[in-house]
Amino acid sequence: MQAKVLVLNGPNLNLLGSREPEIYGRETLADLEAKAKAEAKALGLKIDFRQSNAEHELVGWIQEARGSYAAIVINPAAFTHTSVAILDALNAFEGRVVEVHLSNIHRREAFRHHSYVSGRADAVIAGCGSAGYCFALRHIAALVV
Amino acid sequence: MQAKVLVLNGPNLNLLGSREPEIYGRETLADLEAKAKAEAKALGLKIDFRQSNAEHELVGWIQEARGSYAAIVINPAAFTHTSVAILDALNAFEGRVVEVHLSNIHRREAFRHHSYVSGRADAVIAGCGSAGYCFALRHIAALVV
Amino acid sequence: MQAKVLVLNGPNLNLLGSREPEIYGRETLADLEAKAKAEAKALGLKIDFRQSNAEHELVGWIQEARGSYAAIVINPAAFTHTSVAILDALNAFEGRVVEVHLSNIHRREAFRHHSYVSGRADAVIAGCGSAGYCFALRHIAALVV
Amino acid sequence: MQAKVLVLNGPNLNLLGSREPEIYGRETLADLEAKAKAEAKALGLKIDFRQSNAEHELVGWIQEARGSYAAIVINPAAFTHTSVAILDALNAFEGRVVEVHLSNIHRREAFRHHSYVSGRADAVIAGCGSAGYCFALRHIAALVV
Amino acid sequence: MQAKVLVLNGPNLNLLGSREPEIYGRETLADLEAKAKAEAKALGLKIDFRQSNAEHELVGWIQEARGSYAAIVINPAAFTHTSVAILDALNAFEGRVVEVHLSNIHRREAFRHHSYVSGRADAVIAGCGSAGYCFALRHIAALVV
Amino acid sequence: MQAKVLVLNGPNLNLLGSREPEIYGRETLADLEAKAKAEAKALGLKIDFRQSNAEHELVGWIQEARGSYAAIVINPAAFTHTSVAILDALNAFEGRVVEVHLSNIHRREAFRHHSYVSGRADAVIAGCGSAGYCFALRHIAALVV
Amino acid sequence: MQAKVLVLNGPNLNLLGSREPEIYGRETLADLEAKAKAEAKALGLKIDFRQSNAEHELVGWIQEARGSYAAIVINPAAFTHTSVAILDALNAFEGRVVEVHLSNIHRREAFRHHSYVSGRADAVIAGCGSAGYCFALRHIAALVV
Amino acid sequence: MQAKVLVLNGPNLNLLGSREPEIYGRETLADLEAKAKAEAKALGLKIDFRQSNAEHELVGWIQEARGSYAAIVINPAAFTHTSVAILDALNAFEGRVVEVHLSNIHRREAFRHHSYVSGRADAVIAGCGSAGYCFALRHIAALVV
Amino acid sequence: MQAKVLVLNGPNLNLLGSREPEIYGRETLADLEAKAKAEAKALGLKIDFRQSNAEHELVGWIQEARGSYAAIVINPAAFTHTSVAILDALNAFEGRVVEVHLSNIHRREAFRHHSYVSGRADAVIAGCGSAGYCFALRHIAALVV
Amino acid sequence: MQAKVLVLNGPNLNLLGSREPEIYGRETLADLEAKAKAEAKALGLKIDFRQSNAEHELVGWIQEARGSYAAIVINPAAFTHTSVAILDALNAFEGRVVEVHLSNIHRREAFRHHSYVSGRADAVIAGCGSAGYCFALRHIAALVV
Amino acid sequence: MQAKVLVLNGPNLNLLGSREPEIYGRETLADLEAKAKAEAKALGLKIDFRQSNAEHELVGWIQEARGSYAAIVINPAAFTHTSVAILDALNAFEGRVVEVHLSNIHRREAFRHHSYVSGRADAVIAGCGSAGYCFALRHIAALVV
Amino acid sequence: MQAKVLVLNGPNLNLLGSREPEIYGRETLADLEAKAKAEAKALGLKIDFRQSNAEHELVGWIQEARGSYAAIVINPAAFTHTSVAILDALNAFEGRVVEVHLSNIHRREAFRHHSYVSGRADAVIAGCGSAGYCFALRHIAALVV
Repeated sequence: MQAKVLVLNGPNLNLLGSREPEIYGRETLADLEAKAKAEAKALGLKIDFRQSNAEHELVGWIQEARGSYAAIVINPAAFTHTSVAILDALNAFEGRVVEVHLSNIHRREAFRHHSYVSGRADAVIAGCGSAGYCFALRHIAALVV
Repeated sequence: MQAKVLVLNGPNLNLLGSREPEIYGRETLADLEAKAKAEAKALGLKIDFRQSNAEHELVGWIQEARGSYAAIVINPAAFTHTSVAILDALNAFEGRVVEVHLSNIHRREAFRHHSYVSGRADAVIAGCGSAGYCFALRHIAALVV
Repeated sequence: MQAKVLVLNGPNLNLLGSREPEIYGRETLADLEAKAKAEAKALGLKIDFRQSNAEHELVGWIQEARGSYAAIVINPAAFTHTSVAILDALNAFEGRVVEVHLSNIHRREAFRHHSYVSGRADAVIAGCGSAGYCFALRHIAALVV
Repeated sequence: MQAKVLVLNGPNLNLLGSREPEIYGRETLADLEAKAKAEAKALGLKIDFRQSNAEHELVGWIQEARGSYAAIVINPAAFTHTSVAILDALNAFEGRVVEVHLSNIHRREAFRHHSYVSGRADAVIAGCGSAGYCFALRHIAALVV
Repeated sequence: MQAKVLVLNGPNLNLLGSREPEIYGRETLADLEAKAKAEAKALGLKIDFRQSNAEHELVGWIQEARGSYAAIVINPAAFTHTSVAILDALNAFEGRVVEVHLSNIHRREAFRHHSYVSGRADAVIAGCGSAGYCFALRHIAALVV
Repeated sequence: MQAKVLVLNGPNLNLLGSREPEIYGRETLADLEAKAKAEAKALGLKIDFRQSNAEHELVGWIQEARGSYAAIVINPAAFTHTSVAILDALNAFEGRVVEVHLSNIHRREAFRHHSYVSGRADAVIAGCGSAGYCFALRHIAALVV
Repeated sequence: MQAKVLVLNGPNLNLLGSREPEIYGRETLADLEAKAKAEAKALGLKIDFRQSNAEHELVGWIQEARGSYAAIVINPAAFTHTSVAILDALNAFEGRVVEVHLSNIHRREAFRHHSYVSGRADAVIAGCGSAGYCFALRHIAALVV
Repeated sequence: MQAKVLVLNGPNLNLLGSREPEIYGRETLADLEAKAKAEAKALGLKIDFRQSNAEHELVGWIQEARGSYAAIVINPAAFTHTSVAILDALNAFEGRVVEVHLSNIHRREAFRHHSYVSGRADAVIAGCGSAGYCFALRHIAALVV
Repeated sequence: MQAKVLVLNGPNLNLLGSREPEIYGRETLADLEAKAKAEAKALGLKIDFRQSNAEHELVGWIQEARGSYAAIVINPAAFTHTSVAILDALNAFEGRVVEVHLSNIHRREAFRHHSYVSGRADAVIAGCGSAGYCFALRHIAALVV
Repeated sequence: MQAKVLVLNGPNLNLLGSREPEIYGRETLADLEAKAKAEAKALGLKIDFRQSNAEHELVGWIQEARGSYAAIVINPAAFTHTSVAILDALNAFEGRVVEVHLSNIHRREAFRHHSYVSGRADAVIAGCGSAGYCFALRHIAALVV
Repeated sequence: MQAKVLVLNGPNLNLLGSREPEIYGRETLADLEAKAKAEAKALGLKIDFRQSNAEHELVGWIQEARGSYAAIVINPAAFTHTSVAILDALNAFEGRVVEVHLSNIHRREAFRHHSYVSGRADAVIAGCGSAGYCFALRHIAALVV
Repeated sequence: MQAKVLVLNGPNLNLLGSREPEIYGRETLADLEAKAKAEAKALGLKIDFRQSNAEHELVGWIQEARGSYAAIVINPAAFTHTSVAILDALNAFEGRVVEVHLSNIHRREAFRHHSYVSGRADAVIAGCGSAGYCFALRHIAALVV
């Protein structure tokens, strides 16, 4: 049976392609989802790809992943820097966690250099654009498939 | 007429019993609710016991408590450290507020040592597990009954 | 055609008039809306006036404003100090942004002196009470009408 | 009898129009004075409009305003961040104080984010250009006329 | 055989009832001792109740408790914030430790927000007045009886 | 009846005259006591002059002064920077408090620049040597005689 | 020949008696001067008593005191916390320097706890009201007469 | 012609496989080189793979890469946190830079959370073990091939 | 036509030669002026050499230099560390700015290590004594002559 | 005549052997004293070996050592981090001072990394267990015998 | 077979005897080596004694010590405060590590108070001059011989 | 006999002319050497001009300069901010030290504002480009020739 991976995207990522393209690039979230699904398929993984602007919705999805998903790939976007609730939900999740950022957050404002999620994540990938999601999936595939 | 107390639980507390049991213990939220209700009954209090992963829902419940509840017992969980909105809602509430934490937050990561809510709470109880809720109710009963 | 302005109000502002009147005054949010609408009308602007206790709802409204609103007037209330998600949504908005606070936040607790939104706003008005909204609209009218 | 308002401008504001126009705009201080006077007249206020590069001169003017002026509008410019003497003079003034900045100081260097005056001011308006002075006068008119 | 609990009170608590009653209440230390003893009796515990203004005396009592007391309830008062010696003595004690404060220390001066003892305590109760001692005893009773 | 003043000296002041004379001068504590007593007599005050190396002894003396002494003159020496217990005892004392230091502590190591006692003292005198005690008594005499 | 002492008063002290009397008392600067002159006379000192709101004027007076005055008593008021120029002028002065504050600056806002002048002063007297000037003169008289 | 990539490894990475395997895994540097070369070959890249314990050697290699290499993959190891010289050399390099860490540095000691290199790198990959090098090469291949 | 350079000296530099000669040397300001003028003449520059203890006078001179001077050499002395007004005036000046200090400010008190002016200056020269002025003029001559 | 050395042990060291043996080892204080005495004898030194939980007792012993002891070996234990009174007593002692810690305090909690005593000690030895006392005595013997 | 100990000396220790003798004493490194060798011989240890100004050489020597040396005595000199590479090499070494400093680094500049090596060392000896090396060897001998 | 001056250049300065020319200019290190040699010749000085990317090589050159060179001119480049070893070597050098930076480091990233070398240097020159070296030589010539 295929291992399942939950791919989560935080606030404002639904704007991808039109929001600050000099930082985030011109790909849309749909493009990104297609890319991630193709990669997953090639790797023998099954992914669920979701986005929400609401912290509680992300928390809920992470909770539901317990027991049924092998790993979570999460781009927490703005919540990277502010959400202890997401960190706590991830702490309650028993599988692998890979944190992904489209841009290199270390080249942006100082408050974007700290991530609550990094203290829980197994790996962190930043600045690889949409390829970062594919790398995260590959890393998971190597560990769980 | 019985004084009413609103007992609020923050994000991820719905996982109680299965989430990091070495920190939070093995009781479920339902167990905790039962215990609190029994204690309230014995004390002559009426309680509403709720949990939410959503900050706005907690804010809304606190707002609605104005004028009809004598006190709020709140375990803000992750929102302890990040929510000014909950603090502001509690500031608008005219009754007693007791902050409860299942674990002793002062023995955990440094970012868990600061609580926005403590600046408003009348009392703070941490590390007593589910008994903390009972102590909070007793403290309130002594003041309002 | 009239320029449209989105006027947003953050958490607990629905309590206006009853919440800590020594800080926020006795006007209700409905009073405030009426005042803002009258001012807008006089200035030849059309405004949508909304309030939410939910960060994601505010983020959503800001996202929808892209392309159809000339400006946003925002009183982020508690989210002023905690929401990177709202900052990111505003960064994705191409129009004018004016930040308004009813009270002078610099005379309150230290944690209220920092605003994520100010780094994006074109102008900031604090301590003018409901008149602050009118001034914000006037500033926008002068720029966009 | 008309209420009197003292409008004070700090160091280098005499260069307005020629100094760093991308930050401060192209209006001269004379333009600004004319605008403010027109607004005051319309509001039924009488204003004195002054500028000085000398801290002690500003302190002296604030002292003289005691007992005879209903309010002070002050753009302390560089002294915003360095002058306790101006703060102390304003503390000794019994009327209203509105702090105005032409640009949004929160978008500039970190040392410009702190204002000694804000701890005393009733209201703070930043980033509205010369209109900020008019808003300040309106706010005062509503309170004192 | 009854479990024994050592209840320790730090400096100036002998003034209870007369010292800053708006913070500490009007009960005397003798009242408090009587209350704690009654509670202990009801819980089947035996308590020794002591107060000292001297750090070394408290350290000595904690040392003597090793091997013969099941738990320590301690209100370290001023030593909360300054005594590593008490922390070290508690570290050498093998039983339960509950830290109690009559007032909510988080609503007082910033230097009162840090407690050396909290890093060792199993639980912390603040702001419940004398009831805090009873809650501490109950918590201990549930664990050791 | 003569007003009584308690003059307290902290740790190591018994060494006065022999300890680091380049900082503390060559007068002994007995010289200092004689000087203070002469001054008190001239001012119509009665003083008790004491020294202790023990924090709890100083705390005890302050507690006993409640109700019977009009004022306390205290040179807390090393306890200036470390004792919350002395601060709390002084907070419980209802009379005047003047803090005295023989040397100017602001010209010494950084950790000597902060005083817990200054937040409670009515006046602080540093660097006047033994005369500082006389000035303290004069200040008290003017207020209480 | 009588030793000469320069007594300097910083910004806003000309308002003494009317400015924030709950902090600074009801004596005027003229009262204070009279008191200081009487004390000086009794001590066999000659004083010049001056006040300025201008930092450069104070700097100039300190410079002129070099070689002709035995000591300076200075209440730098707001310049306490902001003026390195006054510190440098005092560093160039070879006589005694006593810093005086009417109120206890350690009980006011945090930014008033640091004094540039204290690093140069021989003694610091705060919170004794106008008597502080007399104590300063006495201290100087004992040293230089 | 094949694009050339320089793969650099900092101090102590020559110990890979034997040094703290619970952090760095059991693969040797030779294993890692073989893996990276195979990946490079598959991607149509040519790589030079080097390790040094000497900062100046790494600086020299980066300097030589200017003009002849399309990109640098660097695992600066301990130099991540201490070397401005490597940052400056990378600043002088005109190609792509990807920073790689075998472990997730954000889960280790606080001083390992800051990287001088991240401020220059186009992307940062941490915690993916040897796969991180492959992901870095893939990211480069997508950009430069 | 000769390029004109304004050479400005801040507070207390008029004392040069007599003030703290172990730090500032024994040359007077007149010596320094003569030296600078000789150097300027040799370089084909015309200089105006001024000193003031008043911040507003320095600000005024910098403002007047706009449009008529090619460069400013400034030794801001104490204002280095405290004057945003001078920084703002220099920001409004379109020519070259060289900051000079007679002593090496980095070997003095910590508060002298930060300079507001350095963020605007093209070059900074410290610790070369009066020669620093000559070097500044040479640097300017090379750029503007 | 034999040089005399005072060996002082701070709070909780009387528990040695039973308190946290994984940090402090299994030797008792009596073992340690025996070891130190044997070493002293071999070195031709005479030692007094004492322990106290009371800061004032340690201060008193240090004071008495003035003039009669050649050196002090001190393991201040918890007072290392909190006692300025001990530092001041040591400052008044004219002989050698060696600070000893049984464990390496730099591998424990952050608050244990700072020592008031180290600023006065001639040497500091940490982590050598009881041998540290012997090394301290040897170091002293080499200097004073 | 004799246990082997590697004794390492960091940058500028080759200057010993001539460099800042008031801090480091007049012994040369050769003197120090002779002393250490004599001590080692007496203890039944075999030592290699080396010095380098190059971080990579020290790192290399530490790496080579793995598996063949029982312990390392290291005086990292300047690298104490700056080298994570040496820390990492020591982390990879399985034997005992003793850190030695000739002077008491806690009495020097603040930046010399932090040591990366102390977090790994088993013991730290500072301020005992060359004897510190002998004490280190004795400590090791007691553990490994 | 001519005084000898050692001119040292830190890491990456060998790239001068090609590396970030907008910061460092277009002159090569050879150009800079030629300029410095010509200046030295004119001043009657003999210079050795060297560059290294290796800290230990710079340390070695500084050590060798002891006794034979009158002064060192050093542009430590990246080592300015990270090398205590170079500072220590300079501390062991008895001649003059002038620190030179081509650019004004105070206008660059915050971590470039601190220099270990400045605490030892007699003078610091930043932002004068290659002329800074000539000024340094002139300053030395005036002192040592």
